[in-house]
Amino acid sequence: KEKWPRGDETVWKTNMRGVDADVGNITKSVVNHVQTSLARQAYNLDNLGAYQAAALSVRDNMLVNWNETQLHYTRKAPKRAYYLSLEFLMGRTLDNALLNLDLKSQYKDGINQLGFSLEDLLEEERDAALGNGGLGRLAACYLDSSASQDLPVWGYGLRYKYGIFQQLISPEGNQLEAPDPWLDNQNPWELPRIDVNYEVRFYGQSERLPEGHGRAIWTGGQEVLAVAYDVMIPGCHTRNTNNLRLWESKPKRGFDLNSFNAGNYEGAVESSNSAAAITSVLYPNDHTTFGKELRLKQQYFWTAASLADIIRRFKNLGKSINEFPDYVAIQLNDTHPTLAIPELMRILLDEEDLDWNFAWQIVTNVFFFTNHTVLPEALEKWPVPLMEHILPRHMQIIYDINMIFLQAVEKKFPGDRERLARMSLIEEGFPKQVRMANLACIGSRRINGVAELHSQLVQTTILKDFVEFFGVSKFGNVTNGITPRRWLDQCNPELSKLISSTLKIDKSVWLKDLYKLKGLVKFAEDKGFRAEWAAIKQRNKERLAHHIETTLGFTVNTNAMFDVQIKRLHEYKRQTLNILGVVHRYLELKAMTPAQRKKINPKVVFFAGKAAPAYYIAKLTIRLIVNVARVINADPETKDYLSLYFLPDYSVSLAEVLIPASDISQHISTAGTEASGTSNMKFCLNGGLLVGTVDGANIEIAEEVGEENVFFFGHLTPAVEDLRYQHVYHPVPVDEACPALANVLNQISGGLFGDGGVYEPLVNTIRQGDYYLVTDDFDSYIRALAMVDDAYMDRDEWVKKSINTTANMGKFSSDRAIMDYAQEYWNLEPIPVGKD
Amino acid sequence: KEKWPRGDETVWKTNMRGVDADVGNITKSVVNHVQTSLARQAYNLDNLGAYQAAALSVRDNMLVNWNETQLHYTRKAPKRAYYLSLEFLMGRTLDNALLNLDLKSQYKDGINQLGFSLEDLLEEERDAALGNGGLGRLAACYLDSSASQDLPVWGYGLRYKYGIFQQLISPEGNQLEAPDPWLDNQNPWELPRIDVNYEVRFYGQSERLPEGHGRAIWTGGQEVLAVAYDVMIPGCHTRNTNNLRLWESKPKRGFDLNSFNAGNYEGAVESSNSAAAITSVLYPNDHTTFGKELRLKQQYFWTAASLADIIRRFKNLGKSINEFPDYVAIQLNDTHPTLAIPELMRILLDEEDLDWNFAWQIVTNVFFFTNHTVLPEALEKWPVPLMEHILPRHMQIIYDINMIFLQAVEKKFPGDRERLARMSLIEEGFPKQVRMANLACIGSRRINGVAELHSQLVQTTILKDFVEFFGVSKFGNVTNGITPRRWLDQCNPELSKLISSTLKIDKSVWLKDLYKLKGLVKFAEDKGFRAEWAAIKQRNKERLAHHIETTLGFTVNTNAMFDVQIKRLHEYKRQTLNILGVVHRYLELKAMTPAQRKKINPKVVFFAGKAAPAYYIAKLTIRLIVNVARVINADPETKDYLSLYFLPDYSVSLAEVLIPASDISQHISTAGTEASGTSNMKFCLNGGLLVGTVDGANIEIAEEVGEENVFFFGHLTPAVEDLRYQHVYHPVPVDEACPALANVLNQISGGLFGDGGVYEPLVNTIRQGDYYLVTDDFDSYIRALAMVDDAYMDRDEWVKKSINTTANMGKFSSDRAIMDYAQEYWNLEPIPVGKD
Repeated sequence: KEKWPRGDETVWKTNMRGVDADVGNITKSVVNHVQTSLARQAYNLDNLGAYQAAALSVRDNMLVNWNETQLHYTRKAPKRAYYLSLEFLMGRTLDNALLNLDLKSQYKDGINQLGFSLEDLLEEERDAALGNGGLGRLAACYLDSSASQDLPVWGYGLRYKYGIFQQLISPEGNQLEAPDPWLDNQNPWELPRIDVNYEVRFYGQSERLPEGHGRAIWTGGQEVLAVAYDVMIPGCHTRNTNNLRLWESKPKRGFDLNSFNAGNYEGAVESSNSAAAITSVLYPNDHTTFGKELRLKQQYFWTAASLADIIRRFKNLGKSINEFPDYVAIQLNDTHPTLAIPELMRILLDEEDLDWNFAWQIVTNVFFFTNHTVLPEALEKWPVPLMEHILPRHMQIIYDINMIFLQAVEKKFPGDRERLARMSLIEEGFPKQVRMANLACIGSRRINGVAELHSQLVQTTILKDFVEFFGVSKFGNVTNGITPRRWLDQCNPELSKLISSTLKIDKSVWLKDLYKLKGLVKFAEDKGFRAEWAAIKQRNKERLAHHIETTLGFTVNTNAMFDVQIKRLHEYKRQTLNILGVVHRYLELKAMTPAQRKKINPKVVFFAGKAAPAYYIAKLTIRLIVNVARVINADPETKDYLSLYFLPDYSVSLAEVLIPASDISQHISTAGTEASGTSNMKFCLNGGLLVGTVDGANIEIAEEVGEENVFFFGHLTPAVEDLRYQHVYHPVPVDEACPALANVLNQISGGLFGDGGVYEPLVNTIRQGDYYLVTDDFDSYIRALAMVDDAYMDRDEWVKKSINTTANMGKFSSDRAIMDYAQEYWNLEPIPVGKD
Repeated sequence: KEKWPRGDETVWKTNMRGVDADVGNITKSVVNHVQTSLARQAYNLDNLGAYQAAALSVRDNMLVNWNETQLHYTRKAPKRAYYLSLEFLMGRTLDNALLNLDLKSQYKDGINQLGFSLEDLLEEERDAALGNGGLGRLAACYLDSSASQDLPVWGYGLRYKYGIFQQLISPEGNQLEAPDPWLDNQNPWELPRIDVNYEVRFYGQSERLPEGHGRAIWTGGQEVLAVAYDVMIPGCHTRNTNNLRLWESKPKRGFDLNSFNAGNYEGAVESSNSAAAITSVLYPNDHTTFGKELRLKQQYFWTAASLADIIRRFKNLGKSINEFPDYVAIQLNDTHPTLAIPELMRILLDEEDLDWNFAWQIVTNVFFFTNHTVLPEALEKWPVPLMEHILPRHMQIIYDINMIFLQAVEKKFPGDRERLARMSLIEEGFPKQVRMANLACIGSRRINGVAELHSQLVQTTILKDFVEFFGVSKFGNVTNGITPRRWLDQCNPELSKLISSTLKIDKSVWLKDLYKLKGLVKFAEDKGFRAEWAAIKQRNKERLAHHIETTLGFTVNTNAMFDVQIKRLHEYKRQTLNILGVVHRYLELKAMTPAQRKKINPKVVFFAGKAAPAYYIAKLTIRLIVNVARVINADPETKDYLSLYFLPDYSVSLAEVLIPASDISQHISTAGTEASGTSNMKFCLNGGLLVGTVDGANIEIAEEVGEENVFFFGHLTPAVEDLRYQHVYHPVPVDEACPALANVLNQISGGLFGDGGVYEPLVNTIRQGDYYLVTDDFDSYIRALAMVDDAYMDRDEWVKKSINTTANMGKFSSDRAIMDYAQEYWNLEPIPVGKD
């Protein structure tokens, strides 16, 4: 038996608390938090205060499991995996925690007795919006699945003081950005761990040591402190509660008192501000890099602190450093954490004193790299002079890695200089640039894409040379997934309940084995079941309409089909195609007689999404959508048949209301551009159908649910390159290529939705070059939408499609994806708490 | 019966917690805080963690009383007083809270069972050092006395991110300053009240309105947010727990995202940094003002937020604004909060739309002003151009106040232009300056000094004209006091216990009625009691020696007399006199034979104190002390008879160890310069005797304890001005005026304590001008020290003096002082919680 570490074991153990699962204790704990943590009373408690007290009470319960889990992992000393992601788009925590802990009904009761409604309190929570879009939300889903499957996986990220900007819409319809001060009301979900901190260096000088094997000493420059904040990740119906560790930057010393005393106040706080600045803001850019010094500092700060922490934990095991890859797997989510590769080399060479080959062998057995895009403009590169300035030692290591690597390439493919130039970590030019994808690729044990098509494209385009060099077995695919806890049980509780009662399986079982949904297929033929299914969809539509009514003041027609496109605004995602389609539909409606219109399928189109603040065309698209909405929603002839809403400030929480309400959703990227997409999975899991291109995970969804349940359109990936070539070298005017589209563009330019001149830059991207093939796909898009209308008119068949879609979404649970990583990449075992 | 505000009253009430007074519940609460608030376990809990858990548990208990007190005051709606002080030197909280709550023994037991020692945990707490010296510590004592006497008094101050600097001593003996990051480990004693915040404006334009009675509109400029942090002030053995509200500055908006997105990161965070800067640092200067913009911003930020908060609370009573002085008294601690006067005028004129005379009547019935100094260099003045720039509206109001006031002066003293110039709020010059003491004086209902002599000097020197104008009844005296809870019971628990058992009075009684100490007089003749008394002093000396041994590594001779001088380094406090006296004693010892030395009273001299970073002479004094110590402590001939220690980083907590260990302490300011002094009171209350000048509260201490128990020396106040005149116009060289001193100075210049040239600037302040009369007082100082030695040799008589001193210190309880303010100034009644 282990020796009790301190004091009287009986006193400790009799006083330690467990999870409070009964209403009485829960209520007491909420009341006590009102009294003590909030220093408030029933007299001055509002919804926000009640939310905070409830959250603190839930946090206490989670902490019991979290403590137990950390202790259990420490004792078992298993191999662990670390998920390094610069973004974690967590959304809200309270509801998710209550569901995963299985305490929602008890809290509902307790809070009710205190005179509040749990539903109201849930709305008080501010989203943790530490991400731009899909990449960050994927990371959040993966953490949920890791905990739910008892896997010892931690996340590492940055604690941005300001998350993704808040989106406002100006009276003219322009996107305005405001800061997101999500920490202003204090955050009950984080555990500050002031005692866990590391020093991170920037700038300074690196001096190679003469005695060889690549060692150097890095000194001087700026030293900044990384302080840990832990976020608990409760598994679903398990005690396993994992950790997401976010780093905050702080000055190593408070401020320069000498400058202060000399009256130079600005000088005194300068270094303090520059340290705090590192984690102050999430970069609001998606699929573009800006080469900004601060962004590079963020990346290094985060990877250096995370690696220091991982190594400290490994060293506590008392193992030799050569066993590092047996105990540690590190997943690089996109190229953002690629600096971890030279950083680990630096530690092994300069601090652990290993020789180069041995160090490189450890490195290349620890890291795994997920590529998220083949868009050329999204491939991360850093100017060599900037890298040399900020990270002089790392630049040396990158040069060394490159030299040794290229020598090996030369050996395998002698004299192929083009190949050497393509594969080099350094891109020639003014300035030279470091290619992060190449570095991530050669420094990792395995590389994966995020959907079948995407993984193929990775291997045949951007990393083709590397496949030829390393062999194909180093490359794989893990199709993205989504957690059914948040994206079905939490956001669509009625549907979850119907599924449990229909399948006669407790949700704790099917939520963790999503293939069980297959059991719903046979109920598609059950009329009563279909009626319930449809009624739930209808109530979710009304819930959305209510939300819009209370937040924006619009009355939405819930008898219409709900058509949703929600994602970052980007030309490749083609919100343009959608809005031009809406205008096309409007023009058609206007041309009809009232009697003709009556036969039309009424439809409400929803858009939501943010544009990168510097992305002019994307912002102009928002402006167009907003102004089209103003015109058509006010047109008495057509508004009952077609209306349009741009919902501002898209967030995880807004998605949770939109997705269950969708009849049809749009995933219409130019073929070959969307790596996977995950909102497509969320809609389909909630019984919404999909209209989309043959791209990303759309393809695999169709494979699972059947092509008859998906509305595909548009050109295929192999055709894209040729079409682009034709656009440039043999252009055909839009009037000829697609008269329907030309008419739409002319109406916009002609001022139907306000001054047409405003939209010229947007319209010209289609008229000239049309890189994203709007012209080529427009007619087939319109035909696909017509098929959607036809299908929807046959409501019975539609509901069958809806049921069959949900029933066949088992593959897209992030549990499947994470288990794939655990088995095929990380070599990780589940370590359930309290089951041995 | 009052209606219960929300939810099920029974559920609320059965779940609300009270104060946990039994060991079992206390232990449980500590363990639970370890588990939840700290997210730790017995396995990884260190002393710091255990301190934090214990502190959080005590905080919970205090909060029960604090909540009850706030509710009780709200219901009773009494007149309240607000103590505005730019400094609150609180020191540590845990021990004080445990004693005031009467829970110390229970926590001691509980913590013991968990494997920790309460004494160790107390040492983990960082001092809240939000003050420079006496003024800030006085404010802290007054808060304790207000709560202990059930008076509805709140403090208002600033939450400096960095308190007074940490003092380090360089190898050469120089003071080095380091920032004091006291909030780094999170502060369990503050309650952030994010919901309590106010906007404060700086700069901009003020436009007078044409329609008269002095209104204006102030717009533009910078707006900053003041956010409240509450610090609980528990009364001693009462449920009354008052509040100290500290303001933190925050940017109104997070940062400028447009600049950020445009790549101008520095621009994006600029306004954010400039807002946060306001409360980031306590000005480390004592008795000097620097005319710094940031200091003025601190003062206005603090007074504006405090007044807004006071007015909001008053308005909740539903009373008319003309009743404001019946419900609110505001004490201005020194001139630092004087801007509250024009700020309240601004609110009454521009926001409440009152006319000038009515507004001025309210203002002059609300404020009370305490003067703390008659040193001319310490009288606060602000350049008119700076004031006009930062506070344009307030400058208008000050001009208006001045004009109306000077018209009244002219009416009473027609044609006396000199008088008008002296009394004006504006001092002529380049630039013109605003005289804050004059403004505080005419804007307040009553003005007081802080000791009898000082109050007389205020009325006869700096405010003489105002006494002639307003009449003497507007001016008074409240001699400062100290709280016997911290300065006897907490810092000297053995003595406290002996007093209780001897007097047969529970400490909760005599600690709140300190005149009860008089009962000790008769025990001075009891030999057994004297032995116990002396033994406690000896153990306190050993406690100090142990502290020095463990922190600095020096072994202190506890058989010697302990002679202590602890206070800010300042020429007027004359640490010079003390160190020169030490050198004199050393030279005398060196001249003796070993046999002669054996007859000498062995003595250890302690210094501690910080010098303002820009105060060159004060810093040089520290260097001299440190280097004298090095020489004499290493001299084998003398070190058993005389040794010397400079204890770095003086703090409240260090004072708590030093004061009970002192046999004799030095309070030797040039007569007329020390307004009161309070450490003199602390030493005497702990049975230490006093050697000092006839200055400040020394005089009143002698009145109380008997001149035979005090060692007075030096010239008296009325002689000072003439001596200074003689020094300048009829100088006598030190060699002639005081050969003993001349010898000491020559030894220093001659290099006995290292390069004499270093100390020339310090030595020259005495040789030339000698503004602080070191030469004049040196011989009588040396004689006084000889009398101290003689008295100490008769140990029995000494202990009697010691007992009689403590026994007669009743007057100096801050309870007496606060009750004086409550009755003679504020017109306040005690509002005991739970006694009606």
